[in-house]
Amino acid sequence: MAQSGDVPVDFRTDPSRYRHWKVAIDGRVATLAMDVREDGGLRPGYELKLNSYDLGVDIELYDAVQRLRFEHPEVAAVILTSAKERVFCAGANIRMLSQSSHPWKVNFCKFTNETRNAIEEATAESRQIYLSAVNGPCAGGGYELALATDHIVMADDGNTSVSLPEIPLLAVLPGTGGLTRLVDKRHVRRDRADFFCTVEEGVKGKRAVDWGLVDEVVPRSKLEATARRRAAELAARSDRPADARGIRLVPLERTIEGDRVVYAYVTCVIDRARGVAEITVAAPATLPPADARTIHDLGCGFWPLALARELDDLVLHLRTNEPEIGLWVLRTTGRADLVEAYDRCLADDETDWLVREIRLYLKRTLKRLDVSSRSMFALIEPGSCFAGTLLELALAADRSYMLGGVRQGDDRPPATVRLTAMNFGAYPMGNGLTRLASRFLGDPGRVDDLKGRLGQDLAAAAADEAGLVTFTPDDIDWDDEVRIAIEERVAFSADALTGMEASLRFAGPETVETKIFARLSAWQNWVFQRPNAVGPKGALQVYGTGQRSEFDRRRV
Amino acid sequence: MAQSGDVPVDFRTDPSRYRHWKVAIDGRVATLAMDVREDGGLRPGYELKLNSYDLGVDIELYDAVQRLRFEHPEVAAVILTSAKERVFCAGANIRMLSQSSHPWKVNFCKFTNETRNAIEEATAESRQIYLSAVNGPCAGGGYELALATDHIVMADDGNTSVSLPEIPLLAVLPGTGGLTRLVDKRHVRRDRADFFCTVEEGVKGKRAVDWGLVDEVVPRSKLEATARRRAAELAARSDRPADARGIRLVPLERTIEGDRVVYAYVTCVIDRARGVAEITVAAPATLPPADARTIHDLGCGFWPLALARELDDLVLHLRTNEPEIGLWVLRTTGRADLVEAYDRCLADDETDWLVREIRLYLKRTLKRLDVSSRSMFALIEPGSCFAGTLLELALAADRSYMLGGVRQGDDRPPATVRLTAMNFGAYPMGNGLTRLASRFLGDPGRVDDLKGRLGQDLAAAAADEAGLVTFTPDDIDWDDEVRIAIEERVAFSADALTGMEASLRFAGPETVETKIFARLSAWQNWVFQRPNAVGPKGALQVYGTGQRSEFDRRRV
Repeated sequence: MAQSGDVPVDFRTDPSRYRHWKVAIDGRVATLAMDVREDGGLRPGYELKLNSYDLGVDIELYDAVQRLRFEHPEVAAVILTSAKERVFCAGANIRMLSQSSHPWKVNFCKFTNETRNAIEEATAESRQIYLSAVNGPCAGGGYELALATDHIVMADDGNTSVSLPEIPLLAVLPGTGGLTRLVDKRHVRRDRADFFCTVEEGVKGKRAVDWGLVDEVVPRSKLEATARRRAAELAARSDRPADARGIRLVPLERTIEGDRVVYAYVTCVIDRARGVAEITVAAPATLPPADARTIHDLGCGFWPLALARELDDLVLHLRTNEPEIGLWVLRTTGRADLVEAYDRCLADDETDWLVREIRLYLKRTLKRLDVSSRSMFALIEPGSCFAGTLLELALAADRSYMLGGVRQGDDRPPATVRLTAMNFGAYPMGNGLTRLASRFLGDPGRVDDLKGRLGQDLAAAAADEAGLVTFTPDDIDWDDEVRIAIEERVAFSADALTGMEASLRFAGPETVETKIFARLSAWQNWVFQRPNAVGPKGALQVYGTGQRSEFDRRRV
Repeated sequence: MAQSGDVPVDFRTDPSRYRHWKVAIDGRVATLAMDVREDGGLRPGYELKLNSYDLGVDIELYDAVQRLRFEHPEVAAVILTSAKERVFCAGANIRMLSQSSHPWKVNFCKFTNETRNAIEEATAESRQIYLSAVNGPCAGGGYELALATDHIVMADDGNTSVSLPEIPLLAVLPGTGGLTRLVDKRHVRRDRADFFCTVEEGVKGKRAVDWGLVDEVVPRSKLEATARRRAAELAARSDRPADARGIRLVPLERTIEGDRVVYAYVTCVIDRARGVAEITVAAPATLPPADARTIHDLGCGFWPLALARELDDLVLHLRTNEPEIGLWVLRTTGRADLVEAYDRCLADDETDWLVREIRLYLKRTLKRLDVSSRSMFALIEPGSCFAGTLLELALAADRSYMLGGVRQGDDRPPATVRLTAMNFGAYPMGNGLTRLASRFLGDPGRVDDLKGRLGQDLAAAAADEAGLVTFTPDDIDWDDEVRIAIEERVAFSADALTGMEASLRFAGPETVETKIFARLSAWQNWVFQRPNAVGPKGALQVYGTGQRSEFDRRRV
């Protein structure tokens, strides 16, 4: 994904380093104002005019959304707006896109999609409710950002409109869920959506309200006051605690040395020759705190939160900076009983706002795995601790291998897996189902049966019978079977695997989220490599050069 | 779609011309046996070995499935098998694929998908139940064909297996719904599906049953008897009339003269300069027959059946032979009251087996419009008859323009649209909802309200208020507004439009069918243009040449 010669992208940031966003908090309401620095691009070669954005801008947005959740329990509504006088947001920067490789474009869109989904999830589940105050032209990715909020107030002036000009202007699709959110979230009538998506200048005023593109328009002079009033109304419906103190998201410690990426609990060793990343997640070393109060005191030191942050960062790092590493091998190490004890904390204290945030963060992080275009194999061996939250890693993997029995010369007991309450609802996938329910789609009763095995140590035969693992080779077969499976996997076409995995991972019901990742992204990936968009005369390529694009008119 | 220099593809055929399929009927059970002639390819340059298929083979299959429905009401179960000794079906012909252009591959897969969906629909709704007797290796598209049937019996011998070898062998995805049907229809566990789709040799015997890949395996010597027994059991559950006489699907009359394609009720005029096809559908000229008996006597002369056949053929013709014609303009002409009268026939006699078939055929034909990668505008003008079944054309269109009032110098009354009972359930889209329900996804009550307007003539203002049309320009604005809309549409990138339309047309719930067309097809389209598959060293390109494929390992 990294363009050659570029330094790796670091997803870690904090408000002291923001260049593009301003966060202001006033009691129950925060304002997140976009104020993109034109010369602040992540890469050279383009200027971020008119509040257009690149990955760097979105990394800050992602960080701001996270911090509002964890550091500001008192904030119950967030107004998304622009700090610029004459524009809300012009969307993703076009020159940046036209200079980017296909993989960069696709990965960029994936991350921005995840951040917009996180905004919707903050609204729905953290009850930190986002709304938009559209105070100037709101185009493309700018409107898609507004679409991710639950209420859109727009200025009714000659200058301000919402638009998705990608198709008429650039011959690509809106990159962050716009088409799906129009018809499936806002239920804009499809013929109106069709018209809207082909009109470069977009729609404004009353028609935008009548068609459901925005929720209300008000005179420019009343925009700010209206947004504040709506924010207060929405905040009044939130259950976020007005008097709680947030925790600080301290800088995440990470060491990259050669081919090793090391965090406190997560370690990744990259084998470039084979194209494999060996990821090991360690169980906590000690018992969990006895009460929610102590969880708050521990903050980022609380193992589940540390785990979420480390895994999240690693996934983003590998996706963006290590595109040739096609297979992630997932292992765990440590004591399953301690993992289970922490899971009990997460289950028992779920009404605590911070515990809720940690559960949601773990959920989002596991979902990042689901949509990562990498193969994942889980290896379940003696000394591992695939219990509860960590068992989700094996369930997220494309397949799992569990060693049956012990290894010669290894006096550790056989590997086991263990279900906890956290496997039965805390971590739904994008399709709205738990990984267990998705796994047993044809036999839902099995999930209920498994509740009877909560807390039991299931060795290979039992885990196999329960349907929790794919293969259970014994010591004699293990090395060859696993080695061959890995060698074969990395030898297949990267693209065919991506298409296959995206198809098999999302069985069952569809949601706006699965439609965005499993359907819309695929169309977009397709369009992103069509000559009409990216060929020498393609619209994305010639945009702004004064040349006319030339299209192959054949419909495919 | 047509390769340059090729003669156009004709989708019309009949059993006397079959070269690849054998149909045998024995009471309630038909056998459809694949027996592909190696030298019978639609195009030169490849041999159809091992029961591999190309579009020509699939056109015959499509015809056979249609005829069994209409010509054989007594057939209640259909055994799909191979007439060859040593192979069931090797799937789509690989040399054909590697020689084909991207548009040809995509269009070929679309048509084969529609035929497999029709097999499932025949099973579910015509109660002509398909099962497979797998009597030899069943690979790729061969297995996908079996997956479209409701019961798969497989020979348990050393030679016979099911497999999806596309990913390991060709670096493409299974082309006709295999991935989706594995996890969403047969509910194969996703980790097992993952393994299965990466194993070239596939899975056989007991494991194939345990994993749900097939329903039963039996010794080779018992395969035929078992299939017959299962067919008899399935037939016993069918409501198809054992003693009814079928109608004959007589040759469909069509004239192609220059840029005009003319049928009895459907006319298409192609404007190559603009890239537009002007399609006009005529209402029936006379009152419908008074009873179902007369419908049977009329057979293909019964207007709704004629309409379905003509529109079906035209859509297939335009898709395959006119790829540069990107916009289909849909008009109707004639008396709305006659259309409504025929709709009443279709509604009143729905328990008649033939009427049921005609309704289902209309449904399938309208669904072909939904998945056609062409823009569609409906123009509703004085003299038109967008009523009931024909109103579905306007609802299927991406947008509609309805002339408000009359034209100067035209003494015909203003255009109206009319709802009939057929708009409220007979023609669900792939998502399982009617076009009205899909249109008003956010406001389901509106569909109920519209039932109150059944049979009323709604002029432009009323139709607009009812939400049935997109724009209602008057005589002064009409010409410019419509002309500009058409000019703009055909000037946009063909690919961006395809991606947009596929996204906006399928809002709401997902089914196996929408997943196949809206999601899986997109991934496949993407993979079908990736260098790992179709580049000079791509797997599909070098297959069979003795060269090794070379892959770009970057994951996208």
